[in-house]
Amino acid sequence: MKIGKYTFEQFCEIAAAFHGTAGPGLLIGGYMVEEAKSRLPEGTIFDAVSETQKCLPDSIQLLTPCSIGNGWLRILRLGRFALALYDKCSGEGVRVHLDTDKLEAWSEIKNWYLQLVPKKAQDTNLLLEQIRRAGPSICSTRPVRLEEAFLAKERKKRKRPIAVCRVCGEAYPALESGVCHGCRGEAPYID
Amino acid sequence: MKIGKYTFEQFCEIAAAFHGTAGPGLLIGGYMVEEAKSRLPEGTIFDAVSETQKCLPDSIQLLTPCSIGNGWLRILRLGRFALALYDKCSGEGVRVHLDTDKLEAWSEIKNWYLQLVPKKAQDTNLLLEQIRRAGPSICSTRPVRLEEAFLAKERKKRKRPIAVCRVCGEAYPALESGVCHGCRGEAPYID
Repeated sequence: MKIGKYTFEQFCEIAAAFHGTAGPGLLIGGYMVEEAKSRLPEGTIFDAVSETQKCLPDSIQLLTPCSIGNGWLRILRLGRFALALYDKCSGEGVRVHLDTDKLEAWSEIKNWYLQLVPKKAQDTNLLLEQIRRAGPSICSTRPVRLEEAFLAKERKKRKRPIAVCRVCGEAYPALESGVCHGCRGEAPYID
Repeated sequence: MKIGKYTFEQFCEIAAAFHGTAGPGLLIGGYMVEEAKSRLPEGTIFDAVSETQKCLPDSIQLLTPCSIGNGWLRILRLGRFALALYDKCSGEGVRVHLDTDKLEAWSEIKNWYLQLVPKKAQDTNLLLEQIRRAGPSICSTRPVRLEEAFLAKERKKRKRPIAVCRVCGEAYPALESGVCHGCRGEAPYID
């Protein structure tokens, strides 16, 4: 089953080039992203949230204009394999998640997703074949609206003036102390 | 000046396809990533940190195997335009930052970086031309070692067992309460 404009095999290649491997999460994520896109009104300018930091953000980055660096993708650490695409202005959109209730017919996807079998005992070929055949049928979709407070925070997040830190001399979004976060002990380097 | 294997123009195209526009941060970031890569010992298996969430993470994702979804790129919200690539095992690597002290000869980069001129008064063509000519000469580099606590957290972060949330029925990394973060009020949706 195609993933947007790509065949399954083409998307596997693109995924592997970007992500290192064409892993199951990335591929299922591909179907989820395309499912979400297909349910937005034509021409919607959208932002994205991923409810997990694992794999799914890369599916979003590969198949939408949203990336972590352009700020249109936001990662929420909710631990759920779900994403939402939503209109930047109205906050209205669609949420798609991988639905455990729809996995009965897909034993190897279930084994992988719920970690029912240790990784080395999983059958990778069967898993990929089931993902390809299942396509978006293992996902569920619902309309969502993003909270106004969330949208307002997204809109405001690029507005702080720039200052030069009086300790390291690097530019950073100004803080009252004149010292950047890195020099306030938040950098993870041993000096 | 080339950005790794790409000409400046080629990287502009790749950057625009992924990020929406070939913005100044993304392009300078490209030179920074290649500068960091060139200083790692040949064959190093490395992870990456970006000290800002703006633009630079996309340069890293486009020019290294590290992505936000495969977990090899970590974003630290320190607000500095800096990155580090480091050996996954030893934590030793190199940090590169855009150096304000090296911008005197590059007026338009300085205007952009320190926001000395309102965005609409900036000369985009001159800015891009200065970035192309300056290449990595506007960056500074130093060796770094990542803290053991940081490395240990990175190594452990994928180990929680999976459970099904008793409220939403979705799979998530198990919490004692049996209820996922989304159902504990952390999801930004209006239901």
